[in-house]
Amino acid sequence: MPSTIESAEVIVCSPGRNYVTVKIVTSDGVVGWGDATVNGRELAVASYLRDHVCPLLVGRDAQRIEQTWQWLYKGGYWRRGPITMAAIGAVDLALWDIKGKELGVPVYQLLGGAVREGVLTYAHASGWEVPQLLDAVDEKLEAGYLAVRAQSGIPGRRSVYAVASPEPDEPTNGFPPIEVWDTDAYLRHIPGVLEAVRSHVGDSIRLLHDAHHRLTPIEAARLGRDLEPVRLFWLEDVTPGENQEALRLVRQHTTTPLAIGEVFNTIWDCMGFISGQYIDFVRTSVMHAGGISPSRRINDFASLYQVKVAPHGPSDVSPITMAASLHLDIATPNLGIQEYMGYAPDTLSVFRADYSFDRGYLHPGDAPGLGVEFDEVAARAFPYERSYLPVAEREDGTPIDW
Amino acid sequence: MPSTIESAEVIVCSPGRNYVTVKIVTSDGVVGWGDATVNGRELAVASYLRDHVCPLLVGRDAQRIEQTWQWLYKGGYWRRGPITMAAIGAVDLALWDIKGKELGVPVYQLLGGAVREGVLTYAHASGWEVPQLLDAVDEKLEAGYLAVRAQSGIPGRRSVYAVASPEPDEPTNGFPPIEVWDTDAYLRHIPGVLEAVRSHVGDSIRLLHDAHHRLTPIEAARLGRDLEPVRLFWLEDVTPGENQEALRLVRQHTTTPLAIGEVFNTIWDCMGFISGQYIDFVRTSVMHAGGISPSRRINDFASLYQVKVAPHGPSDVSPITMAASLHLDIATPNLGIQEYMGYAPDTLSVFRADYSFDRGYLHPGDAPGLGVEFDEVAARAFPYERSYLPVAEREDGTPIDW
Amino acid sequence: MPSTIESAEVIVCSPGRNYVTVKIVTSDGVVGWGDATVNGRELAVASYLRDHVCPLLVGRDAQRIEQTWQWLYKGGYWRRGPITMAAIGAVDLALWDIKGKELGVPVYQLLGGAVREGVLTYAHASGWEVPQLLDAVDEKLEAGYLAVRAQSGIPGRRSVYAVASPEPDEPTNGFPPIEVWDTDAYLRHIPGVLEAVRSHVGDSIRLLHDAHHRLTPIEAARLGRDLEPVRLFWLEDVTPGENQEALRLVRQHTTTPLAIGEVFNTIWDCMGFISGQYIDFVRTSVMHAGGISPSRRINDFASLYQVKVAPHGPSDVSPITMAASLHLDIATPNLGIQEYMGYAPDTLSVFRADYSFDRGYLHPGDAPGLGVEFDEVAARAFPYERSYLPVAEREDGTPIDW
Amino acid sequence: MPSTIESAEVIVCSPGRNYVTVKIVTSDGVVGWGDATVNGRELAVASYLRDHVCPLLVGRDAQRIEQTWQWLYKGGYWRRGPITMAAIGAVDLALWDIKGKELGVPVYQLLGGAVREGVLTYAHASGWEVPQLLDAVDEKLEAGYLAVRAQSGIPGRRSVYAVASPEPDEPTNGFPPIEVWDTDAYLRHIPGVLEAVRSHVGDSIRLLHDAHHRLTPIEAARLGRDLEPVRLFWLEDVTPGENQEALRLVRQHTTTPLAIGEVFNTIWDCMGFISGQYIDFVRTSVMHAGGISPSRRINDFASLYQVKVAPHGPSDVSPITMAASLHLDIATPNLGIQEYMGYAPDTLSVFRADYSFDRGYLHPGDAPGLGVEFDEVAARAFPYERSYLPVAEREDGTPIDW
Repeated sequence: MPSTIESAEVIVCSPGRNYVTVKIVTSDGVVGWGDATVNGRELAVASYLRDHVCPLLVGRDAQRIEQTWQWLYKGGYWRRGPITMAAIGAVDLALWDIKGKELGVPVYQLLGGAVREGVLTYAHASGWEVPQLLDAVDEKLEAGYLAVRAQSGIPGRRSVYAVASPEPDEPTNGFPPIEVWDTDAYLRHIPGVLEAVRSHVGDSIRLLHDAHHRLTPIEAARLGRDLEPVRLFWLEDVTPGENQEALRLVRQHTTTPLAIGEVFNTIWDCMGFISGQYIDFVRTSVMHAGGISPSRRINDFASLYQVKVAPHGPSDVSPITMAASLHLDIATPNLGIQEYMGYAPDTLSVFRADYSFDRGYLHPGDAPGLGVEFDEVAARAFPYERSYLPVAEREDGTPIDW
Repeated sequence: MPSTIESAEVIVCSPGRNYVTVKIVTSDGVVGWGDATVNGRELAVASYLRDHVCPLLVGRDAQRIEQTWQWLYKGGYWRRGPITMAAIGAVDLALWDIKGKELGVPVYQLLGGAVREGVLTYAHASGWEVPQLLDAVDEKLEAGYLAVRAQSGIPGRRSVYAVASPEPDEPTNGFPPIEVWDTDAYLRHIPGVLEAVRSHVGDSIRLLHDAHHRLTPIEAARLGRDLEPVRLFWLEDVTPGENQEALRLVRQHTTTPLAIGEVFNTIWDCMGFISGQYIDFVRTSVMHAGGISPSRRINDFASLYQVKVAPHGPSDVSPITMAASLHLDIATPNLGIQEYMGYAPDTLSVFRADYSFDRGYLHPGDAPGLGVEFDEVAARAFPYERSYLPVAEREDGTPIDW
Repeated sequence: MPSTIESAEVIVCSPGRNYVTVKIVTSDGVVGWGDATVNGRELAVASYLRDHVCPLLVGRDAQRIEQTWQWLYKGGYWRRGPITMAAIGAVDLALWDIKGKELGVPVYQLLGGAVREGVLTYAHASGWEVPQLLDAVDEKLEAGYLAVRAQSGIPGRRSVYAVASPEPDEPTNGFPPIEVWDTDAYLRHIPGVLEAVRSHVGDSIRLLHDAHHRLTPIEAARLGRDLEPVRLFWLEDVTPGENQEALRLVRQHTTTPLAIGEVFNTIWDCMGFISGQYIDFVRTSVMHAGGISPSRRINDFASLYQVKVAPHGPSDVSPITMAASLHLDIATPNLGIQEYMGYAPDTLSVFRADYSFDRGYLHPGDAPGLGVEFDEVAARAFPYERSYLPVAEREDGTPIDW
Repeated sequence: MPSTIESAEVIVCSPGRNYVTVKIVTSDGVVGWGDATVNGRELAVASYLRDHVCPLLVGRDAQRIEQTWQWLYKGGYWRRGPITMAAIGAVDLALWDIKGKELGVPVYQLLGGAVREGVLTYAHASGWEVPQLLDAVDEKLEAGYLAVRAQSGIPGRRSVYAVASPEPDEPTNGFPPIEVWDTDAYLRHIPGVLEAVRSHVGDSIRLLHDAHHRLTPIEAARLGRDLEPVRLFWLEDVTPGENQEALRLVRQHTTTPLAIGEVFNTIWDCMGFISGQYIDFVRTSVMHAGGISPSRRINDFASLYQVKVAPHGPSDVSPITMAASLHLDIATPNLGIQEYMGYAPDTLSVFRADYSFDRGYLHPGDAPGLGVEFDEVAARAFPYERSYLPVAEREDGTPIDW
């Protein structure tokens, strides 16, 4: 007799940062965990799930993952976008967790089995000035990483995406920090920084860099060309994600490999990038893209164009998403690399994860299901605190892509 | 001294059906009203606004509508989709309402002024069998409408989108009704129905029909061809909205005019439809597409391709959105037609609207701002009740587009 | 401890017709069955497996289905084509059978679970003259089928694909029968035949027809248009499969739905048909296309273009492939329909199948794995007998597509 | 009276390496020889011929080469792929051999006669380190070659395609050797190697290099650009052969001439590469592409786009294929160059070939037919030994293109 879903609830906690967790319990008492975190918009997803999706789940056949996914996606009528897809994605993750636990195997065994021994991983390193950046890179290499994303400050600026500023910011009291951006200064400065890093680490370490959607196509084309001697593993998010044709121009000008995708929620957001062969790596988050079920399809679509997958993986999604990503990664022929920022100790005290890191590679572990157990008691000590991502502006105050 | 935003709050009520309303008050005491209703997912938008957006609004310059829009869209990082865009759209509507009230003029005066005397409008008519449908059409014509959307039942089915079934459905207790769909039966049946309507109303009444995303491209192509003798004003939503290339095939086979768009939230969702000249009418909701500010840009883009705008307007968005749509319509050179279902008396007792209908045309009215005042006291009598749109399945249980 | 493959062997038998079966046994004693039948070229696949593939399987991790698939496909260097892909497909089927048995669940539970209750199925009906054809159709409808493929003879011909000739053919002694073909006679004759069938069965039965690769694009376009009043469910294989651009022309001329695909072995053979939206149904055999693992990818690719899958299913593949197809079908959102010819009693005495037919729908059954057990002892009574598909020629002796 | 085919049989032997040979004898006692070798899958082709094709040949008119080809290709129904096309190709070669012998002329006389005096040829040279590579190149130049393909080892790797490793591999006991591949190390290393070779040989020697399907399009683009100063005659097989659009991107970035094709079996596998002008040389093997009859058509199609033909010619096809290639080459206006690895003495003791090499050019010879006689008695001393091509993996164990 197939198990049905007996309850579905949502837990919001903040062990280090905010996470939205969905808990699905079957009639057999199996508990599945899903992550629904959308950084800076957590409560909206929590409401989407608690108020609208969870009531629909009770009584459904827990084995029918795909049917439930289609029901939530098509049945909601209003579809796509981060809130909708993260909510559906969380349910999908929880149901795969349940399926693995019911069958007593790690989820990757249900996805065709491992095609490799481990998942190549890259870490973040940043420093305002080159010396601090090199120190940060060295720290990651000493920890065993074989690939590092390098970000630096920009002369004359006070704050830059993903880099701690030497001048402490004024406290924002829970409001978004404002970052003032100057593309021209960045374009002049960053090639020298990355050349210094390449020269420091030698040829065999994979170097990555993220331009975070702030360039126009022709600026991105110039940057790509300027960076060719650095032989980046990839240059990421050079233009805003909405215009899929924007990268065609970039592509005509440079052989620097291009990556994009953490802001995408469906195949429709990236199908043109892939089929046009404008990118080399597609970087959706397995949860923000609606879960394992649709992410597998994005991965397979990408493989037809020799585009590799390289999932989003900073700590703004919970260890549940990280685990789901690793299960899918290890079973995906066209995996490129996995992003991995690690988590604060408080986070790991609430999300007890079975995956492990060893000499540059992550492994999802062999616990049944996704291998992450959420400690509801421990979570209670970390109530939600409102928090926002930074907002970027030009010097004249124009809001721009952060 | 420019006014600033002093407070922003969200009110959810259900006078007839659920509506999410945002109330923004300026330092000058001016109150602006915005609508953020996403049918079936109301509380998620309410949370998006209340928990994440409203705190950011307080203290901002109420005059800077565009800057706030850019700040919310780009600053949220995770963008697009119905929840995000409806929330931003509601703020945009409220700020235009404020701007009009501060200047003492109806909003359309701030959009370039009226380019026409009134806004051509179409009504919904439906009947399970042809005779009832003809009665329903007659009722609308008698009410003055010059354009009617006609929908009918399908032999052998129990329920069909937008048509009251002769066999009362079992009560769903707040859960989604399930509609079982058979494309083939629909394709065989509907041309005869619409021919009967055309023959009944004569040549000069504009007839419309909605296929509600359920056809494949070739089915849509065949239907378009079969309906050519009916000379429809448009055939709407023939295929699911995600694949913008799908309508190319339809377009090669039929000259029946095509409309699509109520499910779109940004220009990126429909840019390909428009630039490929696959459609004749783009049908975004002014609020679901992010408000007056971005909708004006969609309209302008469409005009470059001789595509007309024909905004979404059933009662699943509140009279505030209806008013915003009318202000934009009357100022938009490439307006096609406005959908209008009307509202239940309870709804109108809470949303006191200044717009008016006369002999087939709507007019936004000349009250300052958008011209819809929300009665907070009256609203209290109508608390939120969970409700869902129907979900569609094939006979074998496969979830499909509703 | 993961199970490894302990042995892999090939069995060729002919219970009614020839089948090639692969048997894989794991270190845990679990037996997986795969089908590798290529009609008329059986022993070549048997050799490909026995002499080249089976030795490579021993000792491999039985859980790593995808890795083994990639190893066989990429590692063989010379790839694609019916022999290679059927051999790899047989291994894939056997490994999915093992995975299901090891986990104690039917394979469809490992593919996301059922998205529907049953798999809509079509049967074959044929008759040389219209009256016999109508009788044959009636027989299928009485058996419960809701969809029938109708084929008839052609005046002045002695033999036609898939139709028993009134004049008994001379015995071919194991050599290919020769069919002499006249396209013009067929194009003149078949619309009337199919109109008679439509008129006989009424509107609601799904009617299909197969042109079996014998038309030029413009002939196919004309036939598609001529058949529009019949409202076929599909018109199949109108042109030879190699030229993916051929159907573009057909597509511009007719809204008759098009199907193609039983001759394809990889996504590369049909990617252009799908992405160009030239077809409505892709008809690969799950085994000839390399197994469940790559077929799932073809299905998902097709879904992006609203192309439905409708797997090949005559008795020229064994019940093992039929079962694999049904497991995939019931888990595939964009399933169209499944072909099903049924099997001779002798075949079913050797291949004991768990799947079942009920009122027009097939169900894969709930036995662990694929649900087909091969009776090795029973098979010994049916030794291989050389057999060929017919060969087609024009009246002047030119060999043409059969 | 035309001769008919009296017998057709298959001989597998391993004089140095495995070869599959088809022997066709006519009613006039003329013997034609064909090669059907598919490296690593020899017995499957042998079975395809012996069990399925040979019985069909007996009694056919030996003069009707084209008719038999069409009969085997179209009449088999399941078509394309290496096994099918090699089998058909072997028959085609044997029938051309017979036709030449019956008329007492070398086959090229039947293909329009020679358009040139000899066939420009390139040899293989490889060395793990640059000095050994230069020695190997010198050896070929001293032997008279005017064109050389240069391949080297990669620092940090143990084995690389086509290069003998300094560290002897462990014996594989007849199983595929595993090669672990690192694209990044290759891309950094190979330009310097080829620059050294160019500098060593001077400007007038034609230099070629083979990337063997292991790059993504953007990696190939970068390599092509990096190699521009070397002025390669061609860069070969940069991406896997399935995706014909992959080379479009490469083409936009570099003027390094591109070659591809040894994995293709029909015009359909390369038509897009040619018509898109993405390549400069098409490299099918005359036998793997189905024989002289269809290869002539590939050559002619390529000529329309100024694409030259440069047939595959390593020792993994027998001297019979080499001879067939030379007969076609010398009669083909758009010949580019012929690959030639030479053969082991044991091979040549079994296949007694009339073609000859002189100062960089091969000549098919003027013996009637193809000019290669197979010594059945000598062959008996060399029984088949199972053997496989290497399999490539990434460092993490992912199977990749070899």
